[in-house]
Amino acid sequence: MRLRHKPWADDYLKENDDIVVQNPFDQKGKWNSLFSEDQPLHIEIGTGKGQFIAGMATQHREINFIGIERAKSIIVSAVEKVKQAEIENARLLNENAQDLRDLFAENEVDKIYLNFSDPWPKTKHEKRRLTYHTFLQQYKGILKPDGEIVLKTDNRKLFEYSLVSFSKFGMILDEVLLDLHDYQDPENVQTEYEEKFSGKGQPIYRCKAYFSS
Amino acid sequence: MRLRHKPWADDYLKENDDIVVQNPFDQKGKWNSLFSEDQPLHIEIGTGKGQFIAGMATQHREINFIGIERAKSIIVSAVEKVKQAEIENARLLNENAQDLRDLFAENEVDKIYLNFSDPWPKTKHEKRRLTYHTFLQQYKGILKPDGEIVLKTDNRKLFEYSLVSFSKFGMILDEVLLDLHDYQDPENVQTEYEEKFSGKGQPIYRCKAYFSS
Ligand SMILES: C[S@@+](CC[C@H](N)C(=O)[O-])C[C@H]1O[C@@H](n2cnc3c(N)ncnc32)[C@H](O)[C@@H]1O
Ligand SMILES: C[S@@+](CC[C@H](N)C(=O)[O-])C[C@H]1O[C@@H](n2cnc3c(N)ncnc32)[C@H](O)[C@@H]1O
Repeated sequence: MRLRHKPWADDYLKENDDIVVQNPFDQKGKWNSLFSEDQPLHIEIGTGKGQFIAGMATQHREINFIGIERAKSIIVSAVEKVKQAEIENARLLNENAQDLRDLFAENEVDKIYLNFSDPWPKTKHEKRRLTYHTFLQQYKGILKPDGEIVLKTDNRKLFEYSLVSFSKFGMILDEVLLDLHDYQDPENVQTEYEEKFSGKGQPIYRCKAYFSS
Repeated sequence: MRLRHKPWADDYLKENDDIVVQNPFDQKGKWNSLFSEDQPLHIEIGTGKGQFIAGMATQHREINFIGIERAKSIIVSAVEKVKQAEIENARLLNENAQDLRDLFAENEVDKIYLNFSDPWPKTKHEKRRLTYHTFLQQYKGILKPDGEIVLKTDNRKLFEYSLVSFSKFGMILDEVLLDLHDYQDPENVQTEYEEKFSGKGQPIYRCKAYFSS
């Protein structure tokens, strides 16, 4: 448990309350009032060290971003990156995303990013995968009708599982890429994990899925 | 055009009319009367040299198989393989699968195999891909309600395309494998192309999809 060795993290997160939202559950239904602009809202679950959210928010000033990361010792790096980027349109939540419907109202969210989510390879841990049907139910409960989920991972089995899970839940796949970096998408913002795995020559998978109406 | 150089192929296919069905369009709706057993019907489109269909029919005597291959010079090898296997439950059609609804009646087919179908990589040839929506419409027109399509390929882009195409057509993915041979499925019967590409170390992709009711 890295947390125990970083008691300063608590203080750090409180000090930076312009970036780290202190009472996120109170914001349900009114997230956009927290940002300087009323514009589409994208959220990332499991933000890690924040390279993606800081990069995306810099590239897309026309979107508000919220990154959710449960590990205190990790989210501090994300706070650092958002600070350095000097952006108004990104906020971080130090929460365990258990039921997103407690944090966001119906139709409040335009896009959900799942980047290199923990794969939970054992069948008995299937329920913990962020693409298990109970999570999809939550996402459906907060996404706009035309909203989508964007999943990136290096983990083949999580990707295979997620495609089937989306499909069985009645979602439509809008894109499937089995080697993202082969496409050299200049708009792609890499996460820390993505850099690590693609640096080793591993393929990165990406898909986009939406709920059919 | 290999065909022109093999005029003997015509004679060979006619001689072997116990395996090569001569007037297949007349069989629409009554395929099972052609076989010695009235049992589920599986078809393969683009059978090639026949290793898959001969192997599957040997492994699954409880199923009737029909392989469709348009190239005369290629289907002769498939005839050879079916002969050698000494099986009753496989037939071959030397036809260009254009509209399968001319060959099969509604609900007549239990499973459709697409093995290493031509990828037609250019966008302007999208309509020729065997997973283009017009083909899916045909498959829907002949498959039983619980019937499925099984696709195997080494071609990443055709696989990506097909997953999206199935999904947009409202089909459900039942399985997605991004490296079939990693699973060492003892039931898997390899095709000629599969042996070639997996021998080179390339991953083989497989998915199963069905029409939702
Ligand atoms: C494998 S890391 C990937 C980090 C980052 N997305 C990247 O690509 O570099 C997964 C992260 O998700 C976080 N996480 C997992 N489940 C979570 C949940 N339910 N709520 C919030 N964070 C979660 C973990 O703490 C970890 O930092
Ligand atoms: C790339 S080869 C694969 C052969 C075999 N399935 C294998 O995996 O070894 C594709 C085959 O499909 C046949 N084919 C393509 N389109 C067809 C169609 N519309 N009807 C019948 N055969 C077709 C081609 O002639 C060719 O033999």
